[in-house]
Amino acid sequence: MGLWDKREDMIIHEADPYNAEPVPSALADRMLTPLDSFYGRNHGPIPVIDPRAWRLRIDGLAEQHPDLSLDDLRSQFPRQTLTATLQCAGNRRAGLIEVRDIPGEAPWGPGATSTAQWTGVSLAAVLRAAGPSEEAAHVAFSAPDISQLADPPQAYGASITLAKAIAGEVLLAWAMNGQPLPPVHGAPVRVIVPGYIGARSVKWVERITLQDHPSDNYFQATAYRLLPAEADPAAAGPGDGLSLGAIAVNSAILRPASGSVLAVGPTGIAGYAFAGDDRGIARVDVSADAGQTWQQASLGPDAGPWAWRQWQTTIDLPAGDTEIIARAWDTSAAAQPESPAHLWNPKGYVNNSWARLHVTTR
Amino acid sequence: MGLWDKREDMIIHEADPYNAEPVPSALADRMLTPLDSFYGRNHGPIPVIDPRAWRLRIDGLAEQHPDLSLDDLRSQFPRQTLTATLQCAGNRRAGLIEVRDIPGEAPWGPGATSTAQWTGVSLAAVLRAAGPSEEAAHVAFSAPDISQLADPPQAYGASITLAKAIAGEVLLAWAMNGQPLPPVHGAPVRVIVPGYIGARSVKWVERITLQDHPSDNYFQATAYRLLPAEADPAAAGPGDGLSLGAIAVNSAILRPASGSVLAVGPTGIAGYAFAGDDRGIARVDVSADAGQTWQQASLGPDAGPWAWRQWQTTIDLPAGDTEIIARAWDTSAAAQPESPAHLWNPKGYVNNSWARLHVTTR
Repeated sequence: MGLWDKREDMIIHEADPYNAEPVPSALADRMLTPLDSFYGRNHGPIPVIDPRAWRLRIDGLAEQHPDLSLDDLRSQFPRQTLTATLQCAGNRRAGLIEVRDIPGEAPWGPGATSTAQWTGVSLAAVLRAAGPSEEAAHVAFSAPDISQLADPPQAYGASITLAKAIAGEVLLAWAMNGQPLPPVHGAPVRVIVPGYIGARSVKWVERITLQDHPSDNYFQATAYRLLPAEADPAAAGPGDGLSLGAIAVNSAILRPASGSVLAVGPTGIAGYAFAGDDRGIARVDVSADAGQTWQQASLGPDAGPWAWRQWQTTIDLPAGDTEIIARAWDTSAAAQPESPAHLWNPKGYVNNSWARLHVTTR
Repeated sequence: MGLWDKREDMIIHEADPYNAEPVPSALADRMLTPLDSFYGRNHGPIPVIDPRAWRLRIDGLAEQHPDLSLDDLRSQFPRQTLTATLQCAGNRRAGLIEVRDIPGEAPWGPGATSTAQWTGVSLAAVLRAAGPSEEAAHVAFSAPDISQLADPPQAYGASITLAKAIAGEVLLAWAMNGQPLPPVHGAPVRVIVPGYIGARSVKWVERITLQDHPSDNYFQATAYRLLPAEADPAAAGPGDGLSLGAIAVNSAILRPASGSVLAVGPTGIAGYAFAGDDRGIARVDVSADAGQTWQQASLGPDAGPWAWRQWQTTIDLPAGDTEIIARAWDTSAAAQPESPAHLWNPKGYVNNSWARLHVTTR
């Protein structure tokens, strides 16, 4: 099935560049998201790269500047597999757009979040072989996909600190859920930066540069920054606002569907909760009475600090219209803010307000 | 000046055990809190220990079980100095008590937070010398102060993971702000666990045990856990609720004083903001119109990831009664929740709702 075929289980926000998220039910009740349901976030055309011709250059502030083939990566470094959730910084933007319109930005629901088991090699091992210089403090990733949305148009890029890059969890991955990466998810090799916004997990990576400053690529220096509500995004330049990296605690209700007509009585509710860095999910509360009382959901399997927790519970649905609310607490006891009203920002990032969904009974 | 002398700049919640916080103005506009303004949180009588007789035993799952004097610590390991904020898990509990009473717990304001420059040796270095076994996963701290508040009464204790203990920032400190630790702050040596609730920074430490499980001390296993709102704290046992460790983003308004009568017009507002782990403070917003508009405060000096940021701004105070609101964002773009109503919990921990303060004009 092609990406652009009509599919009822994917919401296509944009065909070119391809931006799509699964419907919430496609994410429910499973740790790993199937490849053809995994959200796609792109800023330019999807490159199709011959894996035999692909090379990864390491350069910048390092003793060695290796030029690695896919076979080199596979044979020179130990293989590593890790379950990690990717979440777009614009996940749940639709809730912010309800507060005030955000022109030109896709109205992502909670499906700009997906989880896979990634296989590749540790970026730390590759960098260790290159030998970072003392002055190296950041690691920049470059890709070949040219984005016309950047100012000026340029290939996609991003960076993370060297400390994060060598912490052990960052991968150069060629497989997800045991299958080779498809082109739309970064074949032949992409970066996976667990716990950080998806924008740092650069697809089709072809160059890794050790440097003493963050990437000055548009998507690092200007986009993916949280601006204050009153800022004019068209006037915002490099370095304005807060650079997004680690992800704040968030959650979503995935089942039942929003607007469902259901029977009065016990009703299963399910969703996901996720927190960035190495913070885990400690608790998920669900309310059907506007937050007057809460019940704790059961948390699904724990696949480690880089993966979401699926959760589920049963609530007794009263007659009439009901708003179901969910909120998660991470292991630093941080709770989600109540309302998107005070989280509104001109680019529509980081809506981590309480998850809310309306159902009615017949 | 003795601890129990009447002092207008300290709020004594309890004389025995000694529990006191500085008035907000005593914390304002300076990175380091003077020793005699630093908050004191105790669970038993304050031991007075002869530094020449003091010994630190390292035991449990380690190759060596050294017994170290203060001179041993000073001579065998490199000296390390670090600026770190300590924050009590009950900081700002008063805001939760306004929602619903919390019997038997002190109504801490925002002053259960203070910052010092700590000098000592890295716990990582001391543990490295002892040689942790493969099975070691937690590091337990034991102190001599017997608490009658524990069930059953017992000496104070706590633990952190081995990963945190060897990360580099955890100190065994004998000095704060360049002066020897006073008895009330843990002389001759205390643990400093930057980024975690103050309860883990065990004072008067005399034993460090490497083990495969967290401490089963009352103050680790039962107290300092976030229970759901409906739980009965008297019925809560070991392991119930969420263990508190890393601190969620929080802030306070320190100047002007709550209830001040001020002139209409430009008024200086100052406070602190703090986030745990190695998260920094990215932004502080201040509002004088119930959150309809916000202005960004200027952040004071950055003393690294373990210290608070002081902040200040000037707002134009209208005539009449005004509620001033502050909220901080940490570097993971986590914002403080709006209201304490939904953060209420039976032990009164982790009130990190927006800081609010009322003033009026004459």
